[in-house]
This record gives sequence, structure tokens and C-alpha cells, in this order.
Amino acid sequence: MSEPPPIARASLERYADLLVGFGANVQLGQILEVRTELGKEHLARAVAASAYRRGARFVDVRYFDPWHRRARVAGADPETLEFYPSWHRGRVLQLGEQRCARIGLSDTPVPGLLDGLDPTLASRDRFPFVPEYLSVIDDNTTNWCGAVCPTAEWASLVHPDLAPGEALALLWEQVLHVCRLDEDDPIASWRERLEALDAAESELNERRFDALHFAGPGTDLTVGLLPGSRWRSGASETVDGIVFLANLPTEEAFTAPDPARTKGVVRSTRPLQLRSGVLVRDLVVRFEGGRAVQVDASTGVEALRGVLARDEGAARLGEVALVDRGGRVGTLDTVFYFTLLDENAASHVAFGNAYAETVDEGERERANSSSIHVDFMIGGDDVQVDGLTRGGERVPVLRAGSWQI
Amino acid sequence: MSEPPPIARASLERYADLLVGFGANVQLGQILEVRTELGKEHLARAVAASAYRRGARFVDVRYFDPWHRRARVAGADPETLEFYPSWHRGRVLQLGEQRCARIGLSDTPVPGLLDGLDPTLASRDRFPFVPEYLSVIDDNTTNWCGAVCPTAEWASLVHPDLAPGEALALLWEQVLHVCRLDEDDPIASWRERLEALDAAESELNERRFDALHFAGPGTDLTVGLLPGSRWRSGASETVDGIVFLANLPTEEAFTAPDPARTKGVVRSTRPLQLRSGVLVRDLVVRFEGGRAVQVDASTGVEALRGVLARDEGAARLGEVALVDRGGRVGTLDTVFYFTLLDENAASHVAFGNAYAETVDEGERERANSSSIHVDFMIGGDDVQVDGLTRGGERVPVLRAGSWQI
Repeated sequence: MSEPPPIARASLERYADLLVGFGANVQLGQILEVRTELGKEHLARAVAASAYRRGARFVDVRYFDPWHRRARVAGADPETLEFYPSWHRGRVLQLGEQRCARIGLSDTPVPGLLDGLDPTLASRDRFPFVPEYLSVIDDNTTNWCGAVCPTAEWASLVHPDLAPGEALALLWEQVLHVCRLDEDDPIASWRERLEALDAAESELNERRFDALHFAGPGTDLTVGLLPGSRWRSGASETVDGIVFLANLPTEEAFTAPDPARTKGVVRSTRPLQLRSGVLVRDLVVRFEGGRAVQVDASTGVEALRGVLARDEGAARLGEVALVDRGGRVGTLDTVFYFTLLDENAASHVAFGNAYAETVDEGERERANSSSIHVDFMIGGDDVQVDGLTRGGERVPVLRAGSWQI
Repeated sequence: MSEPPPIARASLERYADLLVGFGANVQLGQILEVRTELGKEHLARAVAASAYRRGARFVDVRYFDPWHRRARVAGADPETLEFYPSWHRGRVLQLGEQRCARIGLSDTPVPGLLDGLDPTLASRDRFPFVPEYLSVIDDNTTNWCGAVCPTAEWASLVHPDLAPGEALALLWEQVLHVCRLDEDDPIASWRERLEALDAAESELNERRFDALHFAGPGTDLTVGLLPGSRWRSGASETVDGIVFLANLPTEEAFTAPDPARTKGVVRSTRPLQLRSGVLVRDLVVRFEGGRAVQVDASTGVEALRGVLARDEGAARLGEVALVDRGGRVGTLDTVFYFTLLDENAASHVAFGNAYAETVDEGERERANSSSIHVDFMIGGDDVQVDGLTRGGERVPVLRAGSWQI
């Protein structure tokens, strides 16, 4: 249990300090929740130590074993798969009420986890992600950071041609690179990048496009925007004024679409990893009146259809995000099978719940509402993005991954 | 994360079935809490699978990383060490309110965990054990089983002369032996043993001794009993009539002493492992008027003194237990540095809280009350135990580990 960590302890500590001090921006006296799967003990311990150094009052580490999901889906009464005990609801709501900090190291792929199980059943078991997290995010009462921690299993999925040890070493190197930890001053480097994203965000907010149009191989998609759709990027701020980075890395500018005005066909440009562990490849979705009316894929389509059937808003879009090539994820040209990285490599949309902060207060009722939020990648160098104005004008926004505005 | 388990999968499954089906006696539709440290994933998974096979509604596995305790004691503000978030209080109380089942695989020793840290500070951090567990136990609303899961670190402490793999294999063999899993029908074997314990319990309850007297090398201790002290052994029963074994193995008959009438000196016959991980060796305690007035040991004495200073009842006795040589732990002549096993090898007493079930209802107020419960071993073949009657008669109870009544 105290084996040597897979990377140098000093790198682990630098990474932990970045997540605690800059990403989640943990404050003196705060309680910090750390959500992680087994296999990430070294980073979780470094995060706890870093948080206590900064004066955290308590670090509550929640280890989840993905193999318990297999035991549950395989063995439990299917009628119970959406159940979770009341104390998890209370716990998450109290995280918000008590203005806690949160760091998530969760949801990395575990190859083979659900092999041979019914994907529709698998999609019904969402534990340990309980929907109260979405309302706490919307209340904006916690300063939080979702981040990445390599595991050997995941590394072998990303780099199948390498020996396991080499695959893990390369994945760690890539993670430290995209988190700018190979810079002398990672925080200064992040501030510079966040300024560039901020400039794009401002420009998009000034233009107030009526819709975005994505055109590329297999894709001809129009995503309608609300008059109150507000673009966001980079840092967020809690109701108490604590500045934090909800994702590390973050390379996107994103907003809430009009849930009733997406139409056309879109081909996903990267595989999509569902929370249940199911991998959806070669996804093609057709939208009518804002709703996904046809969903096809070469793997995992049943599990995704199960997710999209979960509630009224699940098959409508809650997010559209633009990603340029100025970030560090896209230029690696690696498929990570992991949303937190892949979504920062390419423009994307998300089924399900919209983030409250991406709609003007008076129009929040119009944004999409759901108990799910599932991103999938639709951008790339060969996908061009235009803005459509209310006057019918077409304005180039992204060409070959470069901002045109 | 899916490495082969340290023992044959079939043995693991048999063990899990014993804990779930006989120890905790998990019922159809119940929620099962499993408390465990990292490093016991294989047994925790087997327990979850077994519980789902029996129709459990949800298995909530709580993994705790003992190394986080080190990070906390080393790095946190000492003023915060007794703090834990409100949701843990709510969670444990709801386990009782919702009539859940519980299985504990916790608190095995982790050598070196607290090396170099201040033991007084270490004794203040009791998380993840929150005191609400004691009230849930007293309410008798959960069917539960505390059990044993070997780890490599613990095995090397118990069998330091063996190679690590051999030490772990031997410890597993011993655990399966004391749990009677080397019998064709472990449950039948347990029922037979529980009948013998039940006979001793009945005899002790009929005699209604006024006190017990322990005499042996370094020990001359009189433990006063209450008129309402009720001896218990083996199986328990929840308020809803679910029969369960609170400990597996269990070889003891135990009751609540009069917290004001213990006097004399006692020398502990086995090392004591505190929850904080501190090991207390060569413990000698002198009691006056029920209170420990002098506490000495060759290691860990400061940490123990810290525990005993925690509240008014912490330095008084809440349990006295008699163990004969008919069990399987004592005959192994192995020191396990782990209360759950060592307490079933030898007669013992416990500082702190008394179990409500060991006092007649009308006298519960008189039994000891505390937020702690710390057992230590005082029996052995060379320690004789007598019962003292109210009339002043002395009745032999245990000689060389054999019942005399």
C-alpha cells in the first residue's frame, strides 16, 4: 500500500499543488471532497497532503471500485439499479450548503469492466455519480476541479502498442504536458492561455449568434442558440467569489444551445466513453426540432440509447463548445477515450443538462434540463464552424482549428 | 485492479458467503454497508457479489486509506483532528434508521503508518470510526459482522520470520481455520461451538457473581459486576429479530462491569493495537474505585493515555469477557496484533463504553458510558479466574483455560 508511485514524487506533488492551489483553489478552513477510483492512491494522497498544507479543515476521500459496478449490474435485481442510499443525497447537498471544495479524479476507462453484461442495465447504474452533483454545480456553491489521473489499464487502452510500463509512463508525460507542468511556471502559462480563451469568449458573447453551423465529413449540423446563451471559458467563480478551474486542462469556450433548435446530422470525431464504462464508437446522430431522433454507432449504441431515454431532456443538447488548436490536447493527436481530455481536443456538444452559468438569468428556464450530461466530440481540422446571425449572415468562426473571429 | 486474489477464488467466495449469509445475515432488500481499508478489494468484491446474490438492495462499500490518516496527523491543524463532516454522522444514523446490514473488514495493523508522528495527536484522529456507530450498535437496529481480512503488511507483522508471500498465505490459512472454513460445513461447526458458549453464558447468568477475580503473573484484579450485569455470547438479535454474529470469529462470553468497582493491578497478556495504529506493548494498569489511575507500557503509552483522557468514562471498564481454550484462536498461540482475533484467544476487559445488551434494562444508566471502546487481553493459561459471590464465597470459573462451572 505504500509502493513507489508511477512517477517521481516531486512531479506528483507539483501536480497535486496545481490541482489544490490553482484548479480547485482550496481555501483555509475548507472541507475538500476528493472523488477517485481505486488505483489512484498516490495522487489522492498527494492531494490530501497538499490540501492540509494549505489549511484545509478535512479531506474526505471517496474511493470507488469500478469492479463493484460489475458485481452490481451482474448480480442485483435490475429494478434496484437506479437506487442509491439517501445519505449520498444528503452528503452531496451538504457539500454545497457548507461551501466545500471538490476535486474529482474519476471516470477513467476500465477496459473489460462490463464485458458480457447487458449495456441497457449497465446504463441504469450511475453510482457513485448522484444527480445532486449537478444541482450543486448549478448553485455554484463549491469551488471544484475535475482532473486526470492515469492508471495502467487506461494507459494500455490509449497506447496499445507499448509495453504496459511504457504506456503508463507516456500517458503520465502527456497528462503533465497538457496540464503545463513541464513549464517552469505552470500557473503563469495557464494564465496566458486563459487570457486567449477569454478573448474568444468575449468576441462570441458580443456577436450573439443566432446559431452555429458545423460542416465536415458526415456532419451538417445547425445548433440554435438562445438570445440569452452566454459563452464561458476558463475560470469560474463561486457565489462567494472563489475563482476556480472546473476542468484541468480546459481549452474550450462553451454555452447552452436552444434545446428546441438543433437540426441535421453529426458524426462524432472521437470515441465516447460513457460513465458506465461502455465505449461508443462511430457515433452518428440525427436531430429534428432539437431532439436526437436517430442514434447509430458501431459499438455501445444500446447503452447510449438507454441514457438518452432517461428523461425528457436527455436526448436534447445542453452544451455546445468550441475548441481551437491553441490548446495542448488537440496537438497530441491521441484519442484518450476520456471526455475530460478528448473534449479539450475538439469542439463538442453535450446531451442533457445545461450549466446555469451559460444562460442569462432571465432565460434559464429555456435552457435544457436533465439528470444527465454526456459530451461527445464533433470538431476537428476538417470540420468548419460558422456563426449564423439573426440577419441571415454567415460568419466564419473556426477554420482548420483556428479562430476566425 | 483485477489482479488474481491472494487465495483461491472459491475460498474467497465461501468466506464471503459465510460473512454475508451467516455472520451479518443480510436480508432480502437490505442495504449493506461494507467498511474496509484499501488492500482488501478481493474480499470486498466477493462480499458485494454474495450480497447481491442474496437479494441485497444496495452494497455501499467504503474504502478507507490508512495513509490518509498519516497525511492528516502530519499536516492538518491539530485543532481540527477531532472534526469530521456532518454527513458522516447522518450516514451512520441512517444505517440504523433504515435497518441496514453492516460488514466491517477494518482496522488491521499497518506497520510504520504513524512512525515519527506525535502519538497524542494521532490518538485524536479517529476517522473513519465515528461515535455514531456506538449508538447504532446500542440501538441494535443493524445486523452486522466485524471480520478479518489479511493484508501483506499485517501478515509480515504477525509472521516476521517468513517471506512476505508465505506470511500472507499462512495468515489466510489461520483466518480460514479460526472461521471454521476448513470444515465441510462451517455453519454446522459454528452452531455447535455457539451452543457450548451459550451453556457457559447461561451458567454465568444463573450464578450472578458479585465480582470476578483474575490472578496471574503481574495480575491481581477484582472486577466488580452490577446486579443487572447480563452475560452474552455468540449470536445477537436486532430489534426486528434478525439473528447475527457481531464478530466472526467469536469465542467469548462477555458482560458489563460495575464502572465504580474495579480495583487492583492487571498486566496485559497480548500487545494492544489502537485504532490510530499505535501498538501498546507490556501494558500494566492499576485501578482504584473503577478508574485506571496508573497506566504504563513499554511502547505506545502516550497514545493510550490520550485515549483514556478523552471523556469521563474512557478510563473505566465497559466490558469484561471470558474466553476458554475451546475456541480456535487461542490454540494457534499466535499474536495477531489485532483485537478481533486476539480478544478471542484470551479473557479480556475493555475501557470505555458498555454494550447496552449486557445490562438489564432497568440498570443501563449504571453501566459505563464513553465515546471509546478499547479491549485489552488479560487472560491466559496461567491466569486463573474466580467468581466472588455476594455471600463472600470464591468459585473457580477458569483454570488453565477450561471452564470450571
